[in-house]
Amino acid sequence: MFAPPTYAHRRRTLCRTLRDESGLVLFLGNEESAMNAAANPYPFRQDSTFLYYFGLDVPGLDAVLDLDDGEARLFGDDPSLDDIVWMGDHPSLRDRAERAGVDRTAPRSALSETLANALKQDRPLHLLPPYRPRHRQRLRTLLGDARDDVEAYVSAPVLDAIVTQRSVKSEAEVEQLEAALDTTAHMHEAAFERAAPGTSERAIAGRLAGIAEAKGRGLSFRPTCSIRGEVLHNHDYSHSLSANDLLLVDAGGTSPLHYAGDITRVVPVGGPFTDRQRRLYNAVLDAQTTALNAIEPGTSFIEIHRHACRVLTNHLIEIGLMNGPVDAAVNAGAHALFFPHGLGHMLGLDVHDMENLGENRVGYAEDQSRSDQFGLHTLRLARPLAPGFVLTVEPGLYFIPALFSQWRDEHRHAEYINYERTEAFMDIGGIRIEDDVLVTNDGARRLGPEIPKTVSAVEAQAGAS
Amino acid sequence: MFAPPTYAHRRRTLCRTLRDESGLVLFLGNEESAMNAAANPYPFRQDSTFLYYFGLDVPGLDAVLDLDDGEARLFGDDPSLDDIVWMGDHPSLRDRAERAGVDRTAPRSALSETLANALKQDRPLHLLPPYRPRHRQRLRTLLGDARDDVEAYVSAPVLDAIVTQRSVKSEAEVEQLEAALDTTAHMHEAAFERAAPGTSERAIAGRLAGIAEAKGRGLSFRPTCSIRGEVLHNHDYSHSLSANDLLLVDAGGTSPLHYAGDITRVVPVGGPFTDRQRRLYNAVLDAQTTALNAIEPGTSFIEIHRHACRVLTNHLIEIGLMNGPVDAAVNAGAHALFFPHGLGHMLGLDVHDMENLGENRVGYAEDQSRSDQFGLHTLRLARPLAPGFVLTVEPGLYFIPALFSQWRDEHRHAEYINYERTEAFMDIGGIRIEDDVLVTNDGARRLGPEIPKTVSAVEAQAGAS
Repeated sequence: MFAPPTYAHRRRTLCRTLRDESGLVLFLGNEESAMNAAANPYPFRQDSTFLYYFGLDVPGLDAVLDLDDGEARLFGDDPSLDDIVWMGDHPSLRDRAERAGVDRTAPRSALSETLANALKQDRPLHLLPPYRPRHRQRLRTLLGDARDDVEAYVSAPVLDAIVTQRSVKSEAEVEQLEAALDTTAHMHEAAFERAAPGTSERAIAGRLAGIAEAKGRGLSFRPTCSIRGEVLHNHDYSHSLSANDLLLVDAGGTSPLHYAGDITRVVPVGGPFTDRQRRLYNAVLDAQTTALNAIEPGTSFIEIHRHACRVLTNHLIEIGLMNGPVDAAVNAGAHALFFPHGLGHMLGLDVHDMENLGENRVGYAEDQSRSDQFGLHTLRLARPLAPGFVLTVEPGLYFIPALFSQWRDEHRHAEYINYERTEAFMDIGGIRIEDDVLVTNDGARRLGPEIPKTVSAVEAQAGAS
Repeated sequence: MFAPPTYAHRRRTLCRTLRDESGLVLFLGNEESAMNAAANPYPFRQDSTFLYYFGLDVPGLDAVLDLDDGEARLFGDDPSLDDIVWMGDHPSLRDRAERAGVDRTAPRSALSETLANALKQDRPLHLLPPYRPRHRQRLRTLLGDARDDVEAYVSAPVLDAIVTQRSVKSEAEVEQLEAALDTTAHMHEAAFERAAPGTSERAIAGRLAGIAEAKGRGLSFRPTCSIRGEVLHNHDYSHSLSANDLLLVDAGGTSPLHYAGDITRVVPVGGPFTDRQRRLYNAVLDAQTTALNAIEPGTSFIEIHRHACRVLTNHLIEIGLMNGPVDAAVNAGAHALFFPHGLGHMLGLDVHDMENLGENRVGYAEDQSRSDQFGLHTLRLARPLAPGFVLTVEPGLYFIPALFSQWRDEHRHAEYINYERTEAFMDIGGIRIEDDVLVTNDGARRLGPEIPKTVSAVEAQAGAS
């Protein structure tokens, strides 16, 4: 945990932003989550907003922030003897509250009454959106007669204030992100070393998980670790690596306080890149470098996304897979056959930071609306950048058989896409290069240790174990 | 997956056992389970009963078995283009059904109507107990007007039939358990090698997770990997190992088809056992060996548990921590200060096999009721053993400060417990030795590779890397 004043300060800042609101904000802590039986849960993951304002990384806690007097109350129970015998000697509720800089505590059973009293007095109740079925179940129980109004209590002003606050990372948070990226760099180093013909994807994925657990608090998301890199969120590890495959590894560790790393690298298996692989890899690298250099406060990320699309399209035209003019092709969305996702997303306690509070609320300014054009529709971050934002930059090029067949059969964007030549590239799979950056006062700083990225650096590391 | 006839055969067996029942049995498949956002789920874990009867290891499926005509129907949807772009090219619903030996399929949206029609025709509906909040949510939606009767539809005869069937493992299932134990043996080997002064618990726990992921389908449960072995389900990995600590590792991998391993070993850190550690270790080993040798069809596991308790108590009397007579001390439950848990549990697709169907239903015969005596109250398995059962045998001795203080202050069982002498042993922590065994026609067979267990074998392996 950070020191207690950090959490008290964060809550004061939230109250100040919300000075025009009154009533109670409810922060539900997470519970254990059943895997194949209630008593065999997944690794515990605290709710990120609860972690941000209270820091307490255990199940069985909730908190309420009173916007009128600025005071927080922590709800929970002291451990029983049975808890201690089976789960260990945990701190008392009072001790936990102290660590979070909270003065008031109450037994967990009192939460329902606290909420009922507030509703009886017509005090506003502010909820965060439930994203686990358990949240919805608990809210129904807690709200009693008001149980069918859960959605109505989800509070736009509170969500906006939280998103604004959590979007700007403090120095201590950036240190946590750097710690996550230290672990992430070790993970990629291990993947590079093992990327040799005959190795299984699963063996490498296992190594990623092991390092993330040993050095941090586990993986920040289920990695892609596959020679089928054209599957954007591939969670299958069933292949063996062969010479001339490209292994795409998109993975991240977490810091002790659960901040997330998120890095992608692509490694040629069993030797240098083939000429075609190298040509496409350098196209992605050019787009990524260009995008990284374009990041600065005030610039909208959607503009950087468009810029990266133009760089990629330019290369695709040179390679003969697309036809220009570049701007027309990109405006039409033709490049999305090869690059169907967004350039990046916010990063913090969550790998898609604050996604549970609403992707558009996090990624789009009030005057920006999300496009429904294929490709652009999955752009998670579009808003003008500000100092303290941490985000990913991750262009890619993919040869996706199902998408290719559909577009070719429909002659979609046929003036911009050379389908015949593209067909010969379908064995390439997918290439993505991703780094994490902090927006500074006058530009951007890439976070974490350097991980091989140029063709020569990657080739020098590949299969080196 | 096993071959399609395996699943068809299992369903036919179930129908035959339930020939006096009629109506529909609903098998809900599991969904993705949100970690810190709906789109960032935990690793997918299919429901074990669904795996047993249908084998399909993906979210988005449910099944219904018609007890009257013996036919199963699989409910699900074909992948969309978006699914294929993001998650890969998955088989069609028809292909999946074929792999499970199922002829009938329907879109997932049709399930609600199928259930409503059955209820309208007054056909019995048989549900399994919901153990994830999502199950309850789905059942409420699926049952429509009958939504408040979920508990009433949970079907004792169906649960009994499933427990009876799943309790007896086939040869192919035993092969899966052996595969899980191969991985588990690698995990323990790695822990043994790393158990040296200065190593962190977390580094070892990470290695366990990495091997389980690389060689199987991940951990079968969150391991205990701690020098605080007296905490029975310790999930904390925050300590560093010091000379003379005992590292307790209770961990298991899973097989490709998700069968679970579950093994405990204790390693002295930085050298041989101390004399007192060795004395207590050998007491546990004696109890475990005695229990393993006592396993045979027809014997009730509660008798073997009691037998192990007597062996442990005998040693504790010799060491001077307890006073006899042995039988009186064990009958009174005095030994439970040192051994507060049960001797073992069933093992299969779940580490506590079928726990989600009811622990007493799995572990206790109709004419056995669970004791409320401290210690015996946590015995998960008591019933007479039968060929094909797979179970754990895991006696232990623990020095639990909170439990010790409470009992001493209450003078509980003061005639049997030498509190003064015990106090001097509190730094020992905890010792447990656990193996997994198959009940055969004439005895038992320990499953999996040998993992060092005698004092000399353990000392030879400890810190060997």
